[in-house]
Parts: sequence; C-alpha cells; structure tokens
Amino acid sequence: MPEAARGITMAAEIAEQPAALARLLDEGRAPIAEVARGIAARNPSFVLLAARGTSDHAALYLKYLIEVRLGLPVGLVSPSTLTVYAAQPHYSDVLWIALSQSGGSPDLVESTTRAREAGAWTIAITNAPESPLARAADAHVDVLSGPESAVAATKSYTSELLASWLLVESWAGGDTSRADVLPGLARAVLDREYGLEVAPRYRFVERLVTTGRGYAYPTAREAALKLMETSYLSAHAFSSADLMHGPLAMIDVDRPVIAVVPFGPGGAAMQPVLDRLAERGADVLIEGDVARAPHAAAHIPLPETGEDIAPILQILPLQQLAYAMAIARGHDPDAPRGLRKVTETI
Amino acid sequence: MPEAARGITMAAEIAEQPAALARLLDEGRAPIAEVARGIAARNPSFVLLAARGTSDHAALYLKYLIEVRLGLPVGLVSPSTLTVYAAQPHYSDVLWIALSQSGGSPDLVESTTRAREAGAWTIAITNAPESPLARAADAHVDVLSGPESAVAATKSYTSELLASWLLVESWAGGDTSRADVLPGLARAVLDREYGLEVAPRYRFVERLVTTGRGYAYPTAREAALKLMETSYLSAHAFSSADLMHGPLAMIDVDRPVIAVVPFGPGGAAMQPVLDRLAERGADVLIEGDVARAPHAAAHIPLPETGEDIAPILQILPLQQLAYAMAIARGHDPDAPRGLRKVTETI
Repeated sequence: MPEAARGITMAAEIAEQPAALARLLDEGRAPIAEVARGIAARNPSFVLLAARGTSDHAALYLKYLIEVRLGLPVGLVSPSTLTVYAAQPHYSDVLWIALSQSGGSPDLVESTTRAREAGAWTIAITNAPESPLARAADAHVDVLSGPESAVAATKSYTSELLASWLLVESWAGGDTSRADVLPGLARAVLDREYGLEVAPRYRFVERLVTTGRGYAYPTAREAALKLMETSYLSAHAFSSADLMHGPLAMIDVDRPVIAVVPFGPGGAAMQPVLDRLAERGADVLIEGDVARAPHAAAHIPLPETGEDIAPILQILPLQQLAYAMAIARGHDPDAPRGLRKVTETI
Repeated sequence: MPEAARGITMAAEIAEQPAALARLLDEGRAPIAEVARGIAARNPSFVLLAARGTSDHAALYLKYLIEVRLGLPVGLVSPSTLTVYAAQPHYSDVLWIALSQSGGSPDLVESTTRAREAGAWTIAITNAPESPLARAADAHVDVLSGPESAVAATKSYTSELLASWLLVESWAGGDTSRADVLPGLARAVLDREYGLEVAPRYRFVERLVTTGRGYAYPTAREAALKLMETSYLSAHAFSSADLMHGPLAMIDVDRPVIAVVPFGPGGAAMQPVLDRLAERGADVLIEGDVARAPHAAAHIPLPETGEDIAPILQILPLQQLAYAMAIARGHDPDAPRGLRKVTETI
C-alpha cells in the first residue's frame, strides 16, 4: 500500500471528532435526557455495565461518573458468566447499560437479553441504532458519531464518553450546558498536533507504560490499547494507585511513561506517583496539568476543564500519537494485522 | 547478594502453599461458614469488592464465583471514587468485601469505613487479623497463610482464593468438602516443577502475553503481575474475549503467549482464540487442558478439577516460572527494585 494511503481513514476520523461532539450535543441531548428520565423513574439501586475493547474504557468512565455523581454502586460485568457459565442472575432493581460502537458483538447481545429477562432495565449505547444490541435493549442511546471505518476506534470513543456524561448529568438533574465548550476545545487541542509533535521520540520504543487515576484512568487504558492495536508495541496501562503495588519495579529509564494528569483531585492524587517516577529517573510524558511534573521529558498541556469532562479531550493527542507512531513504523493503522472491526466473541 | 540467597523467601513461600491450604481447610472452614451465615441472614442484593495488586486478582475470582454460583450482581469498586472524589454512596442492601494480604492499605481502610457508614455490611479478607482493615470491617475472614515476607505475594494469594471459594460455597449452602483434594493436588503440581522446567525458554523474553477466560482470567492477570514484579518484563494479561478485540494485532512469533485453559466451559470458550493464535504462528504455552492445543510450543498439564477451584492450582507453576526467570536474570524476587510490601496508596 502506498504511504499516502496508509492511515487516511483513521486520520480523517480523528479530525471529525469536534464535529461529532457538536452533533451529539445538538441532536443527542434531548433523546438522551428522555432516556435519563426513564432511568430516574425506575430509580435503580445498582448499575451493571457491559462492554469490550475500546467501549470497555468508555464503560469504565461511565462507572466513575455514576459512582461519583450519583453514589450508586456500579459493576463492570463479565459477560462470560452469563454466556459461558449460564449463571442465573437476579437483576431486579438493576440498571444494565451495554456499550458497543457497532452494536454487533453476539456476547453483548446475548448477555443484554439475559439481563433483561432477569429483571434489569436495559440500555444500549451504540453508534448503530439498527444494530442487534440496540434492538435487544429496552432503550437506546445513539452516539451519532457517523460511520466509523478504521479498525482503531477514535470518534466513536469520544462520542461514547460524551453520551455517557450527558446521560449521567441528565439523570442527576444537572446542567448539561457545561459540555458545550467541548467541540471548540477539541478542535483547538487537535489543531495543536501535540501527538504528532512528540511521536518521533517514541519511534523505536517497544515497551511503554501509561497511567492515570480516577476519571483519567480510562484515558490511560484507551491510549495503551490504541498503541497496541496500531503499532503492536507493549503498552501497559496502570491506575496510578496500582502502579505503586508492583509494576513500578518494571519502570526504568528504557521504559517511558505517559501520565494523564487532570486538573483536580485525581491529578493531585497522582502527585506521589509522579514524584516516585522522577526519583527513579523514569522518562515521563505528562499530559494535562503539566505543572505537576515540571522536569518531565515531554509535556502536553491541556485546557483546564472539569475533571469529569476532561477525558473527552485527553485522548485526542494520544490518538494522534498512535496514528503517527504507526505511520512512522510503516504500519497501516486503518487495518491492523489480525483484526476485524466487529469481533464476534461468543 | 550471593546467588544462593536470592529468592529463598519466595521459593519457601511457594513451597508452603499445600500446608497453608490444608491449614485453611482445617482451621478456617468453620469461622468462614459463620461469616457466610451472617451474609445469608442479611440477604444482600449487590456485592462490591475492593482490593489492589495481587488481592485484586483474588477479588476478580471472587466476582466470578458470586456471579456464577449466586447470580448476584457484583462490582469491583474504584476506591478513588470514595477517597479522592468524596462520592456520597448509597449502599443499603450492599455487601462490601475488601481483600488485602496485609490489611494495611490506607485507601482500603478508608473506603471500607466509608462503605460501612453508607449502609453496607462489610467483610475484610486478610492475612492479618489485627490489621486496621480487619478492625474496620463488620466481619473478618482470616486466610491463615502465615507470615509472608517476599514482596511478591504467593501463598497469601492461593489462600485468598480458597477462602473466597469457601465463603461463597458456604453462603450458597453447598458442600465444601470438594476442596479437600486441593492440598494434595497442589503438592503434586509443585513437585512436578513445570515452571522451572519451562523457564529457560523465556530467559531472554522481554514481552509476553497471558490469557484466560472466566475463572481462569484472574490466573492470567496474577501470572502477568508476578512476572512484571520479579523479572521486570512486559507481561500483558488479556481475557481471551478481549484479546480478539485489538491486542491480537500485537501477537507475533516474537511475543509468546501463556494460555491458561481450564477443563470445562471456560476452556471450551477459549478454543477459537487458541485456533487464531495457532493460525498466526504464535508461540503458545498452554496450561491446564493441554489437549486443546496439541501443537503448542509447550505444555503444562494440570489435574482435572472443577473449573471453579482450578485457579488455586493454575497459578502454582506460573509462580515457579516467575521465580525461576528472576533468578536466571540475576534479580532478587524477594525484594524487587522500587517496591515495598505494604503500599500506602492514599
């Protein structure tokens, strides 16, 4: 494949994100508020979230939102307990939310169907309103990001994050206008091309660690997955709390760290980890509140927003980084080896 | 440090596991059944599990047990939502179980205290009955594995698994005598020294993937953590379902895979992944039901047990592997660089 053709779809889909976020705010806010009213009317006691791959990171973000904003207990389900082990669940008072870009994973469709039969009220968040998953659930949230063709999901991820935020904020009876700044900020962050700028220093990296805490942890997970999918390197994501529990031993000068450090309590809670990394002489790229690691090897400053909506911006430079690293290594990030867009896990 | 002294504590603690399991069955069964009666009397609707590091893998195993055996929804909590973001939780009808070898992590103590205040019935599973966590919870399960000194946890992990199994089986009103075979089988598996036997082929590996599904997935996670802690390599654990969703792209002939494949439905559900790995020419070590990958590069057969108790045996050869790899590389697995036994996450 000629160099010019490699990655053009992924690059285009990364660039479409400000428009996709604006569309979701414009056309999605009202239908999402309607679904939120449906949740509030049922007043669930527990929430279960089901997802795989990139959508699993959106689910993790949604988990933090529900725990912090609503104080409800939340679990990320293991679909295999329903599909492989045929567990007989008791799900009255449970809200079940399945997230999937394509809405086509058979195990999510089956587990959502089983959850509904077991008494849960079920919601599907997808980019495919006609999909089997959208039809299997009681209610559907369309993330409206438009067709996504690159195997490495980008715009559907940020749209899933924003749809999740709109859903929880509406459910909590909050003011969703706080998200209105996101399309403009996303445009500004993308235009600055931080990810492309720092990519050369990772040209020959084979092992890398990403870290974040709280709301920023899903960003660390998603960034690691993008790098693995497109450049085949070993990118390990750790919550900054877990990093102190064992994996810190593997950090050395040859294993760079990408730290996603938001403005707010999550960023403050990462300070001891940043200090330990500095003591160990680790090569750290800090993204976000860069003043927390002034002597880091590289900095990607982000605009200061509420920590809860920051993940929608945090991933953007790291998507660009994954794209640029793949191109520099001669890979095609639109079609990584061995992968299909819809994965038929059973 | 002289070569002879390196790793002697970890080796001794690995070898103590059959005796620790026997002690737990002998002395722990009755007190655990008492705690289980306390749970059953409260009839919780939802379970939240809190843990970090190795204990987080025991928590994941406990999650599968509760989901499959009891059909209850379960969540692995993010302690940071309580300790960093000061969420105001609503935990009536919630059973909260915190797992920690040392019982000393401040964030687990604080989040357990907060959960109790929020209405949850709280249990601590620890190896330290006088620890702050044991005192913070309504009830305590002592895993009775004896003092553990090596930073890389081994015997406390298998004892946490068995204590978890005894708790759930008692809660479900089942027959716990099915576990009585475990000390003898553990001794036989350890004596066979499979992990030491296969270690030389990984002497120069820097990146490795572990995989499992369902009950076996916590084993894959724990094995990866042991290898990272003691040999500093990049060991990535993926559920076999997630592996199909992106990370498969990074598997090639130079990145070996350790597949934990139990006898039973979880092992059967891994067959498509094993077949895809074979198609890609991956270097696979299969542990467990080795007939599922007859042409794999290496085999560690395990005795056929119920899939639910198999994880207590699965980890043993992989602990030996982590130990042997660290020794071969000149590291001291008793005291990995940069780590402390009790991690004071706040």
